[in-house]
Amino acid sequence: MKNFKIKTPIKTIGIIGGGQLGRMACFAAQAMGFRTVVFTDQKNSPASFVTNQTILAKYSDKKALKKFADLVDVATFEFENIPFETVDYVASQVSFFPRAEVLKITQHRILEKNFLNSIGVKTADYAEISSLEELQKNLKKFRTNSHGAILKTATMGYDGKGQFVLTKAADIDVAVGAGLVLARLRPQGSPPLILEKFCPFDSEISVLVARGKNSEIKTYAPLTNIHKNGILDESIYPAKISKALQIKAQTIAKRIVEKLDLVGILAVEFFVIGDELLVNELAPRPHNSGHFSMDGCVTSQFEQLIRAITGLPLGSTEFHSEGRMKNLIGDEVKNLEKFYKNPRAKIHLYGKEKVAAGRKMGHVNLLK
Amino acid sequence: MKNFKIKTPIKTIGIIGGGQLGRMACFAAQAMGFRTVVFTDQKNSPASFVTNQTILAKYSDKKALKKFADLVDVATFEFENIPFETVDYVASQVSFFPRAEVLKITQHRILEKNFLNSIGVKTADYAEISSLEELQKNLKKFRTNSHGAILKTATMGYDGKGQFVLTKAADIDVAVGAGLVLARLRPQGSPPLILEKFCPFDSEISVLVARGKNSEIKTYAPLTNIHKNGILDESIYPAKISKALQIKAQTIAKRIVEKLDLVGILAVEFFVIGDELLVNELAPRPHNSGHFSMDGCVTSQFEQLIRAITGLPLGSTEFHSEGRMKNLIGDEVKNLEKFYKNPRAKIHLYGKEKVAAGRKMGHVNLLK
Repeated sequence: MKNFKIKTPIKTIGIIGGGQLGRMACFAAQAMGFRTVVFTDQKNSPASFVTNQTILAKYSDKKALKKFADLVDVATFEFENIPFETVDYVASQVSFFPRAEVLKITQHRILEKNFLNSIGVKTADYAEISSLEELQKNLKKFRTNSHGAILKTATMGYDGKGQFVLTKAADIDVAVGAGLVLARLRPQGSPPLILEKFCPFDSEISVLVARGKNSEIKTYAPLTNIHKNGILDESIYPAKISKALQIKAQTIAKRIVEKLDLVGILAVEFFVIGDELLVNELAPRPHNSGHFSMDGCVTSQFEQLIRAITGLPLGSTEFHSEGRMKNLIGDEVKNLEKFYKNPRAKIHLYGKEKVAAGRKMGHVNLLK
Repeated sequence: MKNFKIKTPIKTIGIIGGGQLGRMACFAAQAMGFRTVVFTDQKNSPASFVTNQTILAKYSDKKALKKFADLVDVATFEFENIPFETVDYVASQVSFFPRAEVLKITQHRILEKNFLNSIGVKTADYAEISSLEELQKNLKKFRTNSHGAILKTATMGYDGKGQFVLTKAADIDVAVGAGLVLARLRPQGSPPLILEKFCPFDSEISVLVARGKNSEIKTYAPLTNIHKNGILDESIYPAKISKALQIKAQTIAKRIVEKLDLVGILAVEFFVIGDELLVNELAPRPHNSGHFSMDGCVTSQFEQLIRAITGLPLGSTEFHSEGRMKNLIGDEVKNLEKFYKNPRAKIHLYGKEKVAAGRKMGHVNLLK
């Protein structure tokens, strides 16, 4: 038999962003025989240690972005706080999924909620805030249930950063201090603010949903999310909700991914309030709450992303095992003994050398 | 909280050999937060594409081996056709598992069978062959059941290479041609030959068994192996043998790993003949027949190896899914369509660009 090169339409996958999501996407891609190139502006990023190649440059460096696009056959991003212009430019040079417009919507809380409501998907009440008067007016409106509201930057916030809870106790101070709040959260030129009505929910769940190039859609079953200090602490499979609500959540997730015309993977976070579901947030990429799929499911969310953007059929989203994902945040990574001793604990560390409070250092999937 | 470096006794794992077994060991190590350094004498080896660092040098290059040892906290090998002297030297410089003596035994068919019989583990009848007379005498002896025997090089053979089947049809020719056989298989200075009695077996199974630094032992359930042209084609879980025989095989594997004083992972191949088990071969490393553990089992054989040599407790060897592993050999890697379309097929490709007949290009784990 003569030697020859394997011909596949896609050989090399580009990932913008060098965090742990990119790192785990690299593993999935490489296991399937693809090469990976990571574009990041951070030295010693988790993904850079495991990718075949890294381009270290600013997200505004067009020359570097062009080089990146030339090196890869298809590209994606691993987190959504990347300038839209970066993604838009790369997408003009090489096949890119999800399409740049998806990023524009999902990196902006107001655009995202406008979009969701426009397709008939419920969210908590919200209002764009651009003055003290608007804040006072809307706070009054949203405080009808005495639970207050949350003031957030419309873009760039994550893990509870860029948020200011306006509670009942802070009632009067709010009106007075609002100017300060605005000044702090909205310096000149920074993104607008959004006030979201706080909904006292029973639980929070998330649904991962993948969509292929041929519009094939597969949803994962919902997981229940537990937060600590505004950061995801645990995701539990199966979610502690009724079967009917599980199906409802998956149906909504399907509708969103379809209407977004997204190719790749999307995480949809919901508040569960009785039999009602409100969408809290979208993330058009693998998501922390989906990590349990790495050890509990036939197809991990990372493999699914790779399958979607390379035009392969999607893999099964069936879970073969129940259990939970526990994040290792900050100091928690120093106490792995109990996890190492648990023969059914699958430990994933991200290769970050410096531990810092609130920093996601790894996660553990605990199989039941 | 002050920033500081995570203190772990072992940070970097060295792997001698750059093949697919090393590649998959790298994935497992990196997922758990370790760094990897691969030592190989082959350019563009499968492992070199995914490891954090590669040292490309001859196995006899002591300077390079010293550098390798200095870079890592613990080392292992990924295949046993590495010169004993290489492993012995690296083991004199850095913590090394399994111990070098294990390699000496398992890379030599005669020493291996002598060892097995010395600890009361049954093998097929065999004889060391160093002359035509010995070959004739032993062939006569082993052909009592009219099934003939197999002449093999005592070292360096794998995937059916370096073997010569002496069948009934070749009966007379054998005696005449044996001189040629000897000349072909045993040029001056090459390793000795072994003649093994051919046992008409019902099936072939293998058992993976891991042993930690603290002598903890965990066995995987047996898998049935199907060969094609002397190369493993499929491994099926669960093995098609009685529960009693499964336990018997695991008990024998435990005995072997204990008596070898092996830290790491060991594959034991058995012939199943009625209720009897004969050990065919040992491999003191992850083994092709264990690949189904990557997608069917709580702990893959690669993670188990990493756990063993880094002194971590071993992971659960429970299988959560049934199914089979199909090797992608040579041209088979060009026909992935049916596997991509199967949502429960987990595809693993090794990054080898050149396809060649008999070359292992990847494997697919097909979950039931």
